[in-house]
Amino acid sequence: MTDLSAVSPPLSSSTPSPPASGSASSVSSKREGSTAAKIAESVRVRDGGLTQLADFHRWYDDYSRESAARVRRIALHDLVGWHEDPVTGDLRHRSGKFFSVEGLDVRIPDGPVPHWTQPIINQPELGILGVLVKEFDGVLHCLMQAKTEPGNINGFQLSPTVQATRSNYTRVHDGRSVPYLDYFQEPTRHRIITDVRQSEQGSWFYQKRNRNMVVEVTEDIEVLEGFCWLTIGQLHQLLALDEVVNMDARTVLSCLPFSGAGPLMAVAPGDDSFRASLLRSCQGSDGGAVPTDQVLRWITDVRSRSEVITAKMPLNALEHWKRDEFAIAHETGRFFELIAVDVQAGSREVRQWTQPMIRPTAPGIVAFLVKRIDGVLHALVHALVEPGCLDVAELSPTVQCTPENFAHLPPAALPPLLGEVVGARPERIRFDVTLSEEGGRFFHASNRYTIVEVDEDAEFDHPEYRWLTVHQLVDLLRHSHYVNIQARSLVACLHSLSGRPSDG
Amino acid sequence: MTDLSAVSPPLSSSTPSPPASGSASSVSSKREGSTAAKIAESVRVRDGGLTQLADFHRWYDDYSRESAARVRRIALHDLVGWHEDPVTGDLRHRSGKFFSVEGLDVRIPDGPVPHWTQPIINQPELGILGVLVKEFDGVLHCLMQAKTEPGNINGFQLSPTVQATRSNYTRVHDGRSVPYLDYFQEPTRHRIITDVRQSEQGSWFYQKRNRNMVVEVTEDIEVLEGFCWLTIGQLHQLLALDEVVNMDARTVLSCLPFSGAGPLMAVAPGDDSFRASLLRSCQGSDGGAVPTDQVLRWITDVRSRSEVITAKMPLNALEHWKRDEFAIAHETGRFFELIAVDVQAGSREVRQWTQPMIRPTAPGIVAFLVKRIDGVLHALVHALVEPGCLDVAELSPTVQCTPENFAHLPPAALPPLLGEVVGARPERIRFDVTLSEEGGRFFHASNRYTIVEVDEDAEFDHPEYRWLTVHQLVDLLRHSHYVNIQARSLVACLHSLSGRPSDG
Repeated sequence: MTDLSAVSPPLSSSTPSPPASGSASSVSSKREGSTAAKIAESVRVRDGGLTQLADFHRWYDDYSRESAARVRRIALHDLVGWHEDPVTGDLRHRSGKFFSVEGLDVRIPDGPVPHWTQPIINQPELGILGVLVKEFDGVLHCLMQAKTEPGNINGFQLSPTVQATRSNYTRVHDGRSVPYLDYFQEPTRHRIITDVRQSEQGSWFYQKRNRNMVVEVTEDIEVLEGFCWLTIGQLHQLLALDEVVNMDARTVLSCLPFSGAGPLMAVAPGDDSFRASLLRSCQGSDGGAVPTDQVLRWITDVRSRSEVITAKMPLNALEHWKRDEFAIAHETGRFFELIAVDVQAGSREVRQWTQPMIRPTAPGIVAFLVKRIDGVLHALVHALVEPGCLDVAELSPTVQCTPENFAHLPPAALPPLLGEVVGARPERIRFDVTLSEEGGRFFHASNRYTIVEVDEDAEFDHPEYRWLTVHQLVDLLRHSHYVNIQARSLVACLHSLSGRPSDG
Repeated sequence: MTDLSAVSPPLSSSTPSPPASGSASSVSSKREGSTAAKIAESVRVRDGGLTQLADFHRWYDDYSRESAARVRRIALHDLVGWHEDPVTGDLRHRSGKFFSVEGLDVRIPDGPVPHWTQPIINQPELGILGVLVKEFDGVLHCLMQAKTEPGNINGFQLSPTVQATRSNYTRVHDGRSVPYLDYFQEPTRHRIITDVRQSEQGSWFYQKRNRNMVVEVTEDIEVLEGFCWLTIGQLHQLLALDEVVNMDARTVLSCLPFSGAGPLMAVAPGDDSFRASLLRSCQGSDGGAVPTDQVLRWITDVRSRSEVITAKMPLNALEHWKRDEFAIAHETGRFFELIAVDVQAGSREVRQWTQPMIRPTAPGIVAFLVKRIDGVLHALVHALVEPGCLDVAELSPTVQCTPENFAHLPPAALPPLLGEVVGARPERIRFDVTLSEEGGRFFHASNRYTIVEVDEDAEFDHPEYRWLTVHQLVDLLRHSHYVNIQARSLVACLHSLSGRPSDG
């Protein structure tokens, strides 16, 4: 979330114009139907709604080129507007808002590493990640934004309609007002489809949560520069491209009440294609290998058995971390480092700021192993303890790690099932795209997001792993505290495969 | 939870003998059936299972008389085994375990009182509240314990089979081993009916949670002294008596997957009695006035709008609290005070200890307003912000307050709907019993628990209140963070009315 940048494209109209204007062609929907059916229909429209994908790409490329930000690393002591506590070394924005960088002491007595210290971002404010949706000619469209974030490897990415912290929208910073914010601050005037608070990276954030919202409107909406309407089917195709759909858009998409329902998503009983098993998994009518009540009790058990003791500590008292002019880094060079950047944003209206960021030292792998159980696709989730979790552990991908951090260790110390992911035969890889974590806090934090299908008879019996259907994950996503941000991205990726032509 | 006392009755057998011994008459159930149906049948058996209520009362009275503890207030500086931090004044057990008493600074900018400070109990350990259940002659029975706790107004109360913190069962204290604990520490050997972590008093505890468990066994169980088997129907009758069923037993009962299902609980379509509306509310087939997805979004909204900033502070730096020899009390005499007690427990095996406790200065009122909507009973819940909540707010009773704390204020400042509760006509009062909060931490913390039915056309439109069915509450109780301890007690009380003869 780029609360510091406030570089939403300027509100004045100018070239390049967005590919379509919703306000002109707005047609009030005459069609009634459940939210699930509406979503299914929007998934089915993979192109040719209000916006042609070819037009989108042309606009997006032009817009990105013209509005790109220039980001360069600077010395930590060149941060402007940031205060370094003389005693603790903690970094705080001079306003006291936005976020701070502090130290954290972590003890997990029964974990593979029972004790460590690390820098952590403390951002207690609740932000809003909101997508505005509206029917055009009977098809739901999402209002998406092409948004600069300093950490993006390619400058721009496609983000939700609104991506703002409280400091953003209460304008602590000298930022401009956040477009479309009113729809999410006074949502009761509209139809709320999704509204749930979800966690973000538990390794880098201390108990951070954002409000994930989808609000449906029927009134005319002016499409501001930098915004455009896309169907969910179009977003699903963009998700198959490297570094286009940002993390905040992915988490909101994952929280949609997506059930693959409706006649357009019907699965023939004998259809044993991957897509059919995925749709059955989304629809939930076939249940899961582990009943949901049992899943809930399992989560209680893992959380109860895991002793995690975290305590804030001074950033300058971390053990095994060293500070030089440009970074606070682990003495092994592994994990991540805290850096500072200077950002020059916007081609027409120049804005400039500096901020600290977390830079992972190597790319990560985020993967679901999936398998069909009685014709229904299941994903293997891991109840993972992360120090920033508000409630001990959340369901995470089968594999979520940075392999380079393990390079010095014997193979037996590698995370479980990493080998199955990196060694998967190409025909078993159902999804394989490079996607970024949040570009407002993390610098070039690209991960390989992949979904690998394993044989139905592949067994993996481990107390911290369970096979869940997509329906069960979506059901848990109605609540906070259950599914972590990386797993939510993968849920959105799984959904994106539901509209693809069958592939066996 | 009496972790400090460890006064579970001695394991050696002696008079008075428990009213029945399960190990002798154990009959392995031949009956299969869903858990819900089993629970419904146990609800129906209001007497005459393994234990006659008349025998229970005789045994309970005798046992209580012989094993009563002697509790007297002592000066704070006479606490033994407790360390007072010389700088902060915080009180800690010398082991570093169990709990500590600290100060808390609370800011709720939009609340009726935007800022205050208070003492708070910090007990980060997760305890177990576990009830062992077993079928005898096809009827589920709960193994309950007659347990001394120093805060109980009458010494003994009926508690779960196991009520223990981690310090208890890892034996930090010089306590004895906790009977029956193995069934809850290795529950996978048995059938787990309930396993969910739930919060406790958010005004007095800082983010405390306990694990609420119900485990069904089929093997023979030795009934130790101080324990006895009761059906749920018998427990429901005991719940109608003042100060018998303790808080820990109530919260575990509330987390049962109670649906009022099964042929024994059938409701005739035209039956407009209170019990029929309650059973429809438990069964959930008729839905609720507010769909559950909407309830979840409402909770998100309340939590997102409520800004709550809490910070630990030194106990000796509280504002408006004064300390004398015997207490730390608010200077107005309202709310509660921190006191110290000396406990002499057990008639045969004498045990003695001292501990701090919280003593409320006046009794409270805990009430649900209920009404029938289309023949289905709904309870009015309040999304209440409490400083000790892990996640901002939880669903609480319609009214949860200590009226004396408001006695000096104009009537307009009274909590909403308090008048409807205290002024209810006798025929609208469906439940009215004095029950205690946890006797291991709270001294004589008795509250009036009451359920008052209002007319179907009674309206109460307030953004922080919603009408929910019992089924919806039980559904939320499969998760943590949703229903507070007082509301859970009332859910157990509502359930207790489902087996009663119809009363119009």
